[in-house]
Amino acid sequence: MQGGKALTGAQSLATRIAALEDQEAIRDLLARYGPLADAGDCAGAAALWTEDGVYKVGGFGEYRGQSAIRTLLEGENHQSLIHGGAAHILSPPVIALEGDRATARNHSVVFRKAGELWEAHRASANLWHLVRTEEGWRIARRVNRLLDGSTDARALIGGQRPA
Amino acid sequence: MQGGKALTGAQSLATRIAALEDQEAIRDLLARYGPLADAGDCAGAAALWTEDGVYKVGGFGEYRGQSAIRTLLEGENHQSLIHGGAAHILSPPVIALEGDRATARNHSVVFRKAGELWEAHRASANLWHLVRTEEGWRIARRVNRLLDGSTDARALIGGQRPA
Amino acid sequence: MQGGKALTGAQSLATRIAALEDQEAIRDLLARYGPLADAGDCAGAAALWTEDGVYKVGGFGEYRGQSAIRTLLEGENHQSLIHGGAAHILSPPVIALEGDRATARNHSVVFRKAGELWEAHRASANLWHLVRTEEGWRIARRVNRLLDGSTDARALIGGQRPA
Repeated sequence: MQGGKALTGAQSLATRIAALEDQEAIRDLLARYGPLADAGDCAGAAALWTEDGVYKVGGFGEYRGQSAIRTLLEGENHQSLIHGGAAHILSPPVIALEGDRATARNHSVVFRKAGELWEAHRASANLWHLVRTEEGWRIARRVNRLLDGSTDARALIGGQRPA
Repeated sequence: MQGGKALTGAQSLATRIAALEDQEAIRDLLARYGPLADAGDCAGAAALWTEDGVYKVGGFGEYRGQSAIRTLLEGENHQSLIHGGAAHILSPPVIALEGDRATARNHSVVFRKAGELWEAHRASANLWHLVRTEEGWRIARRVNRLLDGSTDARALIGGQRPA
Repeated sequence: MQGGKALTGAQSLATRIAALEDQEAIRDLLARYGPLADAGDCAGAAALWTEDGVYKVGGFGEYRGQSAIRTLLEGENHQSLIHGGAAHILSPPVIALEGDRATARNHSVVFRKAGELWEAHRASANLWHLVRTEEGWRIARRVNRLLDGSTDARALIGGQRPA
């Protein structure tokens, strides 16, 4: 009985540890986007998504699949940004786990070098749909909207009241 | 004996897991403020505090209780800010757990859309006093001071040397 | 056997918990830099490094040892910055654990009060080399480079593809 109880306790602990590991893995996944995007590691940044993952970029369009996301980052717009000096800053996310799926909400700000200073030329709301794959957590869909006062951008990060 | 040792081990592990869960919960609580404030979910943002929680806002005043905090966010100042385009960014906090109480220290920056760019119109130091309630961790008191060079703002986030 | 299995399970769980604790400790260590730097707690900020730790600051130079790092922060440049109003914001890091060593990559942005606003007068890439000491995790080496479009700054935060 004693050993049995301990085993049951270990299973319960394992479940709690797994939840912490999932949160850690998702936080890690999201934290990788900015550095990879600024480094110009376009394939690496695209690999944060699932093979058919979607990145909807406020003010631009919707990019479907790793290949399309990589092409976006290899394009003139992003390349001129990072070669001029840029920092893609993401804020700590609010993560909601639901088994093998999860959502995360946070802000992103893109700074661009302008003279001696860096200007915030984008400030956005982000809703991330994440999925557990055989390789680990990946982005199934990232919706990014400019925080320009529009209702739909604000709606993206609302409703996350504490449990 | 073997089973007994395992049980003791499981209790020790459970204590360590609980500390990790507390840090995760507090990080989650703080991460919710910016998205809820920008979304205009004023009741949701106020619900991050305890019923009689306090929010002392640098340059403004002291707001006591969820109702007063909600009213602050529903007011002209905050509403015009978010309807013009705003991002409340909070940095990763330094958390100190003390049983059912905790403190956290971090920065917050409020970006406001101005023409084609976003300007940082507030950069603040924050000291959060947190308390474990039956519903989870909540904010008992948040002190926010503008980082304008004043000694009291700087003192708010000092003294956090590593253990 | 039952008890033995539970013990084995507990050891496995302990290893997973230790990894989570290491990530938490490193995140905590990095989160302390900004608040301590802005507070003007120069000895406290320097104590985040090992005794002979190195801080290579983009656009400045290389500072070797806690004493040199403290002197840097006590110097005219940093002191006039924080007395005029400053916020050193660090983004959530990408952490890679390797036993008693670890690396972390993130962004830092330094805001400086200018009139009624705060300007981003530095936006940098950071590579942190961390080491486990008897007192806990400490910074062995921090390399900071301005994100001004230069290849070496971008290289500092590239290559962090998901496992």
